[in-house]
Amino acid sequence: MPHRTHQKAELVVYNTSQVLTCAGGLPKRGATAGELKPIERGAVAVAEGKILAVGPEDHVLKRITDETVMVNAHGGILLPGLIDSHTHPVYGGDRSGEFLLRLGGAGYEELQAKGLGIQTTVNGTRSMSLEQLLNSARKRLRRMMAEGVTTFEAKSGYGLDLESELKLLRAIKQLNEEGTSKLELVPTFMGAHLVPKEYADRRGEYLDLVCEEMLPQVAQEGLAEFCDVFCDVGAFTVEESRRVLTAAKSLGLGLKLHADELACTGGTELGVELGARSVDHLPYVSEAGIAALGKSDTAAVLLPATTFFLFKDRYAPGRALVDAGAIVALATDHNPGSSHTQSILRAVELGVMRCGLTAAEAIVAVTANAAYAIGREATLGSIETGKQADLTILDVATPEELIYAWGVNHITGIVKHGELVTI
Amino acid sequence: MPHRTHQKAELVVYNTSQVLTCAGGLPKRGATAGELKPIERGAVAVAEGKILAVGPEDHVLKRITDETVMVNAHGGILLPGLIDSHTHPVYGGDRSGEFLLRLGGAGYEELQAKGLGIQTTVNGTRSMSLEQLLNSARKRLRRMMAEGVTTFEAKSGYGLDLESELKLLRAIKQLNEEGTSKLELVPTFMGAHLVPKEYADRRGEYLDLVCEEMLPQVAQEGLAEFCDVFCDVGAFTVEESRRVLTAAKSLGLGLKLHADELACTGGTELGVELGARSVDHLPYVSEAGIAALGKSDTAAVLLPATTFFLFKDRYAPGRALVDAGAIVALATDHNPGSSHTQSILRAVELGVMRCGLTAAEAIVAVTANAAYAIGREATLGSIETGKQADLTILDVATPEELIYAWGVNHITGIVKHGELVTI
Repeated sequence: MPHRTHQKAELVVYNTSQVLTCAGGLPKRGATAGELKPIERGAVAVAEGKILAVGPEDHVLKRITDETVMVNAHGGILLPGLIDSHTHPVYGGDRSGEFLLRLGGAGYEELQAKGLGIQTTVNGTRSMSLEQLLNSARKRLRRMMAEGVTTFEAKSGYGLDLESELKLLRAIKQLNEEGTSKLELVPTFMGAHLVPKEYADRRGEYLDLVCEEMLPQVAQEGLAEFCDVFCDVGAFTVEESRRVLTAAKSLGLGLKLHADELACTGGTELGVELGARSVDHLPYVSEAGIAALGKSDTAAVLLPATTFFLFKDRYAPGRALVDAGAIVALATDHNPGSSHTQSILRAVELGVMRCGLTAAEAIVAVTANAAYAIGREATLGSIETGKQADLTILDVATPEELIYAWGVNHITGIVKHGELVTI
Repeated sequence: MPHRTHQKAELVVYNTSQVLTCAGGLPKRGATAGELKPIERGAVAVAEGKILAVGPEDHVLKRITDETVMVNAHGGILLPGLIDSHTHPVYGGDRSGEFLLRLGGAGYEELQAKGLGIQTTVNGTRSMSLEQLLNSARKRLRRMMAEGVTTFEAKSGYGLDLESELKLLRAIKQLNEEGTSKLELVPTFMGAHLVPKEYADRRGEYLDLVCEEMLPQVAQEGLAEFCDVFCDVGAFTVEESRRVLTAAKSLGLGLKLHADELACTGGTELGVELGARSVDHLPYVSEAGIAALGKSDTAAVLLPATTFFLFKDRYAPGRALVDAGAIVALATDHNPGSSHTQSILRAVELGVMRCGLTAAEAIVAVTANAAYAIGREATLGSIETGKQADLTILDVATPEELIYAWGVNHITGIVKHGELVTI
């Protein structure tokens, strides 16, 4: 694109306390507030869906015309559009009863072993039509956007048969298409979420189905960018996970793993070995796994809202991961069982207050590093000229205040693809 | 008031999933969802600031005229206006630096012992004018109202000299008056929040000041309904607390205590002995204290957002307290140091997920029992004909869903004194 000195802004966000661009080379390891180079009283100009200019307000305001949409940040901070890099947003069924059982003392693993848990959602999802799935997902995603999210990673994995998995991925595709530029989802195939009950005694056959039928079909239709596997006790072993991920890799899909969430089974090391884009969860990651992540280009996606909602007290070792040099992201893990919140701000708060990240690191974890975790680092995750114009405005003056004033929705505006979104 | 069969509604809330009146005799001990007697698809009619009718929608809708304001609950639940029965909402200064020290590993008690903590806020508060205090408090209370609260208990305790304590109580009085019917605060004098630094070696003299100068002046001006004391390690002993509370009682004030928060020092038993309206905090309440509360009319106000924000894992034993027969309330404890959230919904969630209350009990804890804890049970806390028309509408269909879908603001409407509040 030729350099156009006089290009005018279609939209400008001004009157900020500071702009945190999260720019300057990716992935970000151990980002500090200083490294984020906040632009005090900065502004951002947007045109044709992209960042046109970012810098001190007086400089950026030279771009405005009578037709520029002026967005007043009212003294709040302006961030790259937040990215939720791990969600399961399309599902049917009702797990509120299971939640009550958990409140009564039942453990998540115990319910899962009894055929409740994920299988309940699988039953509910299989029986729902595409339209029903879309209706419930739209409402959910809208609420999540209201908490500041502009891009979602979205997994299948509640179908667990060929048609139902395709139905989920087609739902994600349709949500993407109907949202035009306003709702953006990055699809992940997760047929290996659980061995469904009808294959309980035929695990190998289910893996055949995933590797030989589902994956080729998903790849052929272009329905997913990533393949994820739940590698943990009660789900898939490291060797089973290796089989699925190897098959996915050969079909050109990026790799993700649910790893070391419920126990230390070595999923992290497997992910690093296979060159996965991310390994997610990690409360039980080993010292070796932390060291391996520190030296790798595999992102560590922490999901502390899950730990909180499962009433567990062992959070992922965020501080150790950052200190080891890992690329750390934070996400909600929104799903109907183990993490039912729809607020990425809660994940950010817990990332600081329970996983030991700094506020600046937590912001990078839902912007630049989250973009990296979903393979969108070239276009999303930072405020830089030419990048997609996704922005989130908050009513706090600093990253630290976002955590200190925890528990409420601090979002006052969202710009997606250059346009102000009404939530 | 004569019975007027044909009185028309000025405002009606309709299209609810259910109305939870929280009515039927106070205080509520161990309330279950069944005992709450939800009115499925109920509606509420309001006139002259009071509840005119509550019942099935078709019945209530008979009260409407062309001029009735119709408030659509869009299938959500309708509750009595939420009450935050323990807050410290008027203060100056900045404790965000202390928060960063705590994130870095410093303990709250450790900082308090070093002269940081409450004393920092005292310094900041003393140097602020009444107008400055009002400006910051208005913003804070507005945010808290947006999370569903219609009435606040509000403490002094950041002045700790005669003039500054009076300044805080006058600020609370002015907020009440300027809010007319929209903002309602119940004032509590808390001169015994801490021994201020200038009295560090003269504790007795500070207690003389509280008992012989502050309390009589506060009572004479009618600036407080309650007197509260921070009875704990690092604050006031049981005997010191007894002195202050006895003096307050003799002046006609109701009694409250910060009790057994940081250690088990017996504040609960003292509160019960003196007939306090509430004892608050209670993570370290003894078995004897639980039993005593179960048999008393002293409410137990649980503040789990404080426990969460102090990174502690010992929450108040809500389940045991309810089972013992105690009157259990939940509140935010909003203050700049130990509990900086402005969302009572987070306190409700933690009350269920960490203190063991049921969702129904948690709702009673911020309505009927919270009204009792602030001495407003005659007019607030339940939806009953003739009571003040304070209502909160949420976008969930059941109390359980409010907890299950944790972490976001579920409030869709607030009616205060019969009028819809724009937040």
